[in-house]
Amino acid sequence: MRGAPRAATPSRSSGAESSERSERPQRPRAAGPERSERPQRPRAGDPVSSVEGAVSAVPAPTRRAVRRSRDDVVRVAGRLFAERGFHGTSMRDLGDELGLLGSSLYAHIGSKNELLVEIIEEGAGLFQSLADQVAASGTAPREQLRRLVVGHVAIVTDNLDRAATLLNEGRHLPEGDRGRIVAMRDRYQDAYRTVLAGGIAAGDFRAGLDVHVAATFVLSLLNALDRWYDPAGARQPEAIAELLFDFVVRGLEP
Amino acid sequence: MRGAPRAATPSRSSGAESSERSERPQRPRAAGPERSERPQRPRAGDPVSSVEGAVSAVPAPTRRAVRRSRDDVVRVAGRLFAERGFHGTSMRDLGDELGLLGSSLYAHIGSKNELLVEIIEEGAGLFQSLADQVAASGTAPREQLRRLVVGHVAIVTDNLDRAATLLNEGRHLPEGDRGRIVAMRDRYQDAYRTVLAGGIAAGDFRAGLDVHVAATFVLSLLNALDRWYDPAGARQPEAIAELLFDFVVRGLEP
Repeated sequence: MRGAPRAATPSRSSGAESSERSERPQRPRAAGPERSERPQRPRAGDPVSSVEGAVSAVPAPTRRAVRRSRDDVVRVAGRLFAERGFHGTSMRDLGDELGLLGSSLYAHIGSKNELLVEIIEEGAGLFQSLADQVAASGTAPREQLRRLVVGHVAIVTDNLDRAATLLNEGRHLPEGDRGRIVAMRDRYQDAYRTVLAGGIAAGDFRAGLDVHVAATFVLSLLNALDRWYDPAGARQPEAIAELLFDFVVRGLEP
Repeated sequence: MRGAPRAATPSRSSGAESSERSERPQRPRAAGPERSERPQRPRAGDPVSSVEGAVSAVPAPTRRAVRRSRDDVVRVAGRLFAERGFHGTSMRDLGDELGLLGSSLYAHIGSKNELLVEIIEEGAGLFQSLADQVAASGTAPREQLRRLVVGHVAIVTDNLDRAATLLNEGRHLPEGDRGRIVAMRDRYQDAYRTVLAGGIAAGDFRAGLDVHVAATFVLSLLNALDRWYDPAGARQPEAIAELLFDFVVRGLEP
């Protein structure tokens, strides 16, 4: 039960308040064995958060003239996949959220699979860019690790829906796209192993450290973030990143 | 990209080898931003792992006389939910896996929701029992934390499918059952906060530690386990638990 099931407490299940983000708990909650917790209420016709704009507050049938960009479609799909899961989201759900009839939706995209690939690949690309930048920085390994942690926290907190889709729905990727995205993930994990190995060589980290295990631990901590981070909470991403880095470095130091 | 998408490498997508477990990578892999990775291949008619027995190697239509217990149904549902997600698993998939026609399946259970609740509630109950045992042990806080970590690792490694369902599919719980299971999760998280607060009071852990944040970090590490633990890997659960506890305690100590 990990994180706080955000729709589960009475104050959040009334349906009167509607923002996905504002429904999150006020502060980081301890992670437990339950992983996901976003509300599963029907969305069509609900007033929506400011993040998504106010358009879907108007029932779909009255919005034939709504203009939507492909970016709108990808963004809303990311939110629905994060909330309901890939298989829990239908193309009809997506059309309802966007105020688009089926044919208008298909003018933007070919399939639900295509959306999943795009959302996950763009997300993976953000992490890859971070790793490339850090590697090119030429700083000491300990500082590179700090930059990876800070950058990872920034990416997740700026892209919560995309991060959740990347983390939870990757298993539903079409077989033909999976290998490419797995390769991106492997490169990202390798960046951590390289930095950890460099830190051991520099004497900053313990000599006996297994870099595979250590990288797994660091990434386990980082990848839980989307489940407990609260944009409305007291702690800013920078403060969270410092707490995380401090905890990680204590685990690694000689 | 967290963990290794297990169906993604060429050696695992051939379909010739069929055990879910044997398809896992040989050793713990670094966790990355992609969370889930179990194979998504059709299962009906596949040869199946020894864990599941050989029954589903026989096509469903020839198996009218198959006898299944309710436990069989719950166990196979747990595996399918873990592999494909709750919404990615149909009652028909479940019937095919078990070699049961629809009416026989419904003799065992009322609905897919009922199965989800049962699997998650039983899983949460295991964690709750652990926390209760540890609290009743009367040992020092640092030793209680060690017992929580060792016990948590044992539960997850002994119940990988149930743990994955608990962690990933909890958001799909029916509203009416959610509160009860959330309360179990909250109690489990509280056990960690209590132990951490006790450790601070005893001087074993840092005085300035925020017990909510620290419990979140510890549980983030523990809850990533089902994504990278490999039953066929070189490290036994006990060794993994010691590595985890060592890492955690370094992060907590003064």
